[in-house]
Amino acid sequence: MDLSSIKDPTFLKKCSKTELEDLAQEIRDFLISKLSVTGGHLGPNLGVVELTLILHQLFESPKDKFLWDVGHQAYVHKILTGRADQFDQLRQYKGLCGFPKRNESEHDVWETGHSSTSLSAAMGMATARDIKGTNENIVAIIGDGALTGGMALEALNHIGHEQKDLIVVLNDNEMSIAPNVGALHNVLGRMRTAGRYQKAKDELEMLIKKIPAFGGRLAATAERVKDSLKYLLVSGMFFEELGFTYLGPVDGHDLEDLNTNLMYAKKTKGPVLVHVLTKKGKGYAPAENDAKGTWHGLGPYKMESGEVVKKPGPPGYSAVVANTLRQIARDDKRVVAITAAMPGGTKLDLFAKEFPDRMFDVGIAEQHATTMAAGLATQGLKPVFSVYSTFLQRGYDQVVHDVCRQNLNVFFAIDRSGLVGADGETHQGVFDIAYLRHLPNMKILMPKDENELQHMVYTAVQYDGGPIAVRYPRGNGYGVQMEETLREIPIGKWEVLRPGDDLTILTFGTMIPLAEEAAEKLAKDGIHVEVVNARSIKPLDEGMLQELAEKNQKIVTVEEAALQGGFGSAVLEYFHDNDYHHMVVERMGIPDKFIEHGSVSQLLEEIGLTSDQLVKQAKKIVPRKRQRA
Amino acid sequence: MDLSSIKDPTFLKKCSKTELEDLAQEIRDFLISKLSVTGGHLGPNLGVVELTLILHQLFESPKDKFLWDVGHQAYVHKILTGRADQFDQLRQYKGLCGFPKRNESEHDVWETGHSSTSLSAAMGMATARDIKGTNENIVAIIGDGALTGGMALEALNHIGHEQKDLIVVLNDNEMSIAPNVGALHNVLGRMRTAGRYQKAKDELEMLIKKIPAFGGRLAATAERVKDSLKYLLVSGMFFEELGFTYLGPVDGHDLEDLNTNLMYAKKTKGPVLVHVLTKKGKGYAPAENDAKGTWHGLGPYKMESGEVVKKPGPPGYSAVVANTLRQIARDDKRVVAITAAMPGGTKLDLFAKEFPDRMFDVGIAEQHATTMAAGLATQGLKPVFSVYSTFLQRGYDQVVHDVCRQNLNVFFAIDRSGLVGADGETHQGVFDIAYLRHLPNMKILMPKDENELQHMVYTAVQYDGGPIAVRYPRGNGYGVQMEETLREIPIGKWEVLRPGDDLTILTFGTMIPLAEEAAEKLAKDGIHVEVVNARSIKPLDEGMLQELAEKNQKIVTVEEAALQGGFGSAVLEYFHDNDYHHMVVERMGIPDKFIEHGSVSQLLEEIGLTSDQLVKQAKKIVPRKRQRA
Repeated sequence: MDLSSIKDPTFLKKCSKTELEDLAQEIRDFLISKLSVTGGHLGPNLGVVELTLILHQLFESPKDKFLWDVGHQAYVHKILTGRADQFDQLRQYKGLCGFPKRNESEHDVWETGHSSTSLSAAMGMATARDIKGTNENIVAIIGDGALTGGMALEALNHIGHEQKDLIVVLNDNEMSIAPNVGALHNVLGRMRTAGRYQKAKDELEMLIKKIPAFGGRLAATAERVKDSLKYLLVSGMFFEELGFTYLGPVDGHDLEDLNTNLMYAKKTKGPVLVHVLTKKGKGYAPAENDAKGTWHGLGPYKMESGEVVKKPGPPGYSAVVANTLRQIARDDKRVVAITAAMPGGTKLDLFAKEFPDRMFDVGIAEQHATTMAAGLATQGLKPVFSVYSTFLQRGYDQVVHDVCRQNLNVFFAIDRSGLVGADGETHQGVFDIAYLRHLPNMKILMPKDENELQHMVYTAVQYDGGPIAVRYPRGNGYGVQMEETLREIPIGKWEVLRPGDDLTILTFGTMIPLAEEAAEKLAKDGIHVEVVNARSIKPLDEGMLQELAEKNQKIVTVEEAALQGGFGSAVLEYFHDNDYHHMVVERMGIPDKFIEHGSVSQLLEEIGLTSDQLVKQAKKIVPRKRQRA
Repeated sequence: MDLSSIKDPTFLKKCSKTELEDLAQEIRDFLISKLSVTGGHLGPNLGVVELTLILHQLFESPKDKFLWDVGHQAYVHKILTGRADQFDQLRQYKGLCGFPKRNESEHDVWETGHSSTSLSAAMGMATARDIKGTNENIVAIIGDGALTGGMALEALNHIGHEQKDLIVVLNDNEMSIAPNVGALHNVLGRMRTAGRYQKAKDELEMLIKKIPAFGGRLAATAERVKDSLKYLLVSGMFFEELGFTYLGPVDGHDLEDLNTNLMYAKKTKGPVLVHVLTKKGKGYAPAENDAKGTWHGLGPYKMESGEVVKKPGPPGYSAVVANTLRQIARDDKRVVAITAAMPGGTKLDLFAKEFPDRMFDVGIAEQHATTMAAGLATQGLKPVFSVYSTFLQRGYDQVVHDVCRQNLNVFFAIDRSGLVGADGETHQGVFDIAYLRHLPNMKILMPKDENELQHMVYTAVQYDGGPIAVRYPRGNGYGVQMEETLREIPIGKWEVLRPGDDLTILTFGTMIPLAEEAAEKLAKDGIHVEVVNARSIKPLDEGMLQELAEKNQKIVTVEEAALQGGFGSAVLEYFHDNDYHHMVVERMGIPDKFIEHGSVSQLLEEIGLTSDQLVKQAKKIVPRKRQRA
C-alpha cells in the first residue's frame, strides 16, 4: 500500500496477519530508503515495526495513550498516524521531528528525547484517568537501556505499589546505543533464556505439597512457595517482586506472539510488564550486524551496500578529548574516565581501548556517574566524566551536593555544548553555563578550537582546586594545527585575538568565527573591533574586565548558550558589583525559548546569532562620529 | 565511661559484649540528654547505636571507610571518633555539624545531607582502591527510605555488575521520615518476615534433584533452581538478582547477630548487602512510639516526659500552602498534590486528611515526582509538587525536559527556600532562582508574608499558561491578618510598599523587613527610599523597571538567594537589554560560596545580608548632596 495514504491507524483493525506482514515489509523498505537520504534512528525503528503494528491494532490511539521512552523509535508510529509523507524532511528545519511531538499529532501524547521518563509520565496519566473516571489504556514502551535510569526505577517502585492499571512494554534488544551494562541487564538476560514450563511447574507444585518440611515449617509461606516457583520457571520475579504481572519473553518480530501477550496485558488488572525481545536493525543486514552501534542513529548511507556516507573533515571534538586523555593517562595513573552509556558518542571507547580497566560505562545513570566520580576524587584519583551537556542536567544535584560542595577534583568534559542540530530541543546543550555558573567552586572553560581543547583537557587534569568543566561543541574542529606539547591554559585569563579601540566583543567557542567575521565587516565601516577569546567563563578575566571598564570600552558579549544567567550576565554582574555602573554592554545569545531541530546554521539564523546581527548590535552602541569616520 | 574521653574508636577492639552493652546505654542516655537541649535527629541515632558500635569494633576507621547515607544518623559515629564534647554546640553556628563533615574528622570520609548518594560514592572509593591496589573496606550505611532514590538503584545496578568488594548495610527501620512507600518497601517487608530454614533448604535441595521434571527438562537450570531455593528460603533474591550476596535479616539491636553477619560480610568477596532491622528511637519510649515522625529530627524537648517544647507562633508557611490547597481543592477537582517522602515537612499530610486519593507520596524520588506531575498535567489535572528547594535540585532535568519544554501546568510549591539554618549547607535553599530562572516558560513568585502566600497558591492553581513556582521560606509567618477571600496576584507586577525618590530597593520574601528597616534608618539621614515587593521574580515587572530607568533611579536589589544568575542579575539583564546602560544597580544576596549551619540570623550577619549593610550600600550610590540634605 501507499504509506502516504494512511491517515490514522484505524485501518489496522481489519488487517489480516498476512496484510500486517506485508505492511511490515513495506514500512521497513520505506524507512531504509528514506533514511538513507535524511539519516535518522534506523536501527531502533526497524526493531519495533511489528510491535508498533500490533499496538496500533489492539489499542485505540489517541484515546489509548502510547508513551515512547526516549522517543527515537517512534517513526513507525508516525507513519501509522498519517505522517509518512513528511519523512523527506525528517529532523530537518521545520520538518518532521525525530521524536514524538505533541504539536505534530494528537497521537503523540508525551514528548521524549531524554531517556527513562515514560514510566513516570504513564503513572501520571493513569492516575489522572482514575481520578477522572475514564477508561483509556496507558502503554509505555521502554528499552532495556532506559530501564537503568534511576527515575525509571523510582517509577517502577511507585507504580508497583499503587497497582495502577498500566502496561509497560519492555523493548529488550540487549543494547541501547552501546551494549547495556549493569546487573539489571544480567537479570534480563536470565529471563530471556528462561523457558516457560507449565507442566514442570504443575508437577513441582504437586510434589512440593508432599514434602514434610513444607507441610510443617513452611506451611505459612504457601504464597512464597508459589512465588518461588514462578521465579524458578518464568523468571520474571524481578518485576513480579515489584508488583507487576510479568508476561514474556515475547518474540517481538512474531505478530501472533505479540498479539497474544498484549491482548492478555490489556485484560489484566494492575500493572503489567510485557517483556518483548526485539532485534535492532531487523530486516536490514548492515544494521542487524552492527556491533559498534553505528546504525542506532546516523547520517545518510548507501542503501544497497549499507556504506555510511562519511564526511571527510578534521578530528571531532569528542575524539580530541578522548585521545588527549589517553595520552595523559599513560603517565598520569590518576586519570580514569566515566561515561553514562555513551562510549561511542563521547569517543571514550578510544580511551577504553588502551585503558579498559580505567574506563567505566555505568549505563544511563548520570546521577550515579557524577557521584561515583566524586567518590573516586576523594581517593586522589582524577575522574573525567564525559557527558553531553543536555544529559548532565540529570546530575545537577549531584554536581551541586556531592562535587561542588565537597570541592572535589572532578573533571566534567561537557560534550555537545551549544546547539546540536537535528536532535532538536530535547538535546540542545544550551543551559549548562546557566546551571553550572552559580555553583561555588566550579570552573568553566570553553576552547576556541580543537588545539586549545587538547590544552584545556590537559589543564583540567592538572587542576587540583576542585571541580572543573570544559565544554565543547558537537562535531568537528576546524583543522587547525595540533601542537605536540600539551600545556596549561591559565584559568581566568582571556586572550585578545584581534585588537580594536571602538568596541570589544567578548565571546568564546563556536561564536569566535562569527565575531571575527563581524569585526571584518565593521572594519570596512571604520569601526575597530577588539575580539576576545573569553575562554574562561568562570572565573572571568577580572583583570581584563577592569581594564575595559577603566577605558569605558563598549562591549558586546556573544555566546551560544542561554542568555538568562549566562556568560553575558556574569559580565554585567562583574561591572555592577565593582561599581562600573556606566558600562555599555550588549548581550547576544540563546533567547528565553526552546529551540527546535534544524541545522545549526539555520537555528543560529533564526535566533539572530549571525555576524550581520552582531554588526547591527555593534553599530547601535558605537558612537555615530566614529561610524562616519 | 566518660564519653568525652574517647579520642578514637580503637578502644572498642578490646571491649567485651557487656562493656559494649553498657556503652550503648551510656550513648543513648547521652543523646537523649544532649538533644533535649539542642534538638537534632534523635530517632535515627538511637536506632543505630549497636550497629555503629559493631562497625567501629570490626573495622578500622579511617583506613576502612564508612559512608553514612543522608548522614543524620552519624551522631554515634561522631561520639566514637572523639567528638562527644562538642555536642552542646550540635547544629549551632560554628559548632558540630549535624551531618558527616570532612573538615571535622578524618573518620568522616564522605559528606551527606541529601539522600541516596552513599552507594555511588562507595563504588567510586572501591574502584579507586582497586586501581591503587590497597585493601581497605568500604561500608555504606543506607536506610530503606534512601533506597527508593533513583541514584541508589543506579548504583546497585552498577555495583552488582562490577562485583566490587564493598558492603552495603541496609538499615531497615521501615520508615525514613514518613512511613515508606513503594513496591521495594513491600519487597523488604517480605524479607523481614522470612525465616532462615537451613534444614528445610537442604531437604528441599535433596528432594528436588529426584524430581523427574528437574532431572529432565530443567537439567540445564540447576543454577536457577539453587537461586530459586535461596529465594524461597532466604528471600533476599531481589538483591541476589542484582549480584549482591544477601545476609540477613539481622537484629540491629543484637550485638552478636550484628557481629556474626558483619564479620561474615567482611570476609565475603564481591558486593554484600547486610539487611539490618532497627527500631527508630530505640531505648526512649517517646521516640519509639512515634507514629508521626516527630522524633526523626526535632527541636528541644523535656527529657523526662518527652514533651516537645513548642514555640508558639503564627502559622508556618508549609501549613498555609497545604491548607490553602485543601480549601481550593474542595471546588477545584483538578487539584492533586505530590510529595517525595515529606508529607509531614511539607504539611501535605493536612491535605491528605481530606483528600487521601488526591495526594501521592512517591518516596524519595523527586525525578519521578516531577515527571509524574507532568503526566498528570497532560490530562488536564493541576498537580502541585510540594518540595524543598534543595531537593528539587534532584528533579532539575525533569523540570527542564518534561515540564518546561512541554509547557505543562505544573505548580511547584518550593518549600524551605532561602537559608534553612541548622541543617546547614546541604540543605540551604539558595540556588532555586538560579536553576529555574533560565528555563523557558517558567514563572517564579515569592510572597512577602503568609497572607500573600495563600493568594499566590490560589494564583498558581488558576494559572494555566505553563509551569509556575511559588517559593517560600522555612518556618512561621509574621502573624499578619489572613484575608478570607482568595484572589489572584498579578504575575509580572510588583508592589510599592513604601515610596521614596532617592533610591529604590527591589526585594522580596524574607528580605522585605530588612529593606524596610534600612529604609527607616536611611530616612533619618534624609534619604528617601522606595521599597518594592518584587514578588514576581520571573517575569520581572518590566513596566516598573522601565519607569525606574526613565527617571534614572538608583537601585539596590536584595535577595536571600545565590547572587550569580539570581534576581539581581535578571534586573541587570533587563536594563542592558533595553538600552538602559546607565543604571546604577547594586546587588545584595548570597555570595559564591556554600553556607554552613547556624541560625538564619547568624548566617545573614556572616554574609552581610543585614539592614546595616544595606544602609551602607545605599549610601555608596546615593549622591552626597542628598545625603547631607
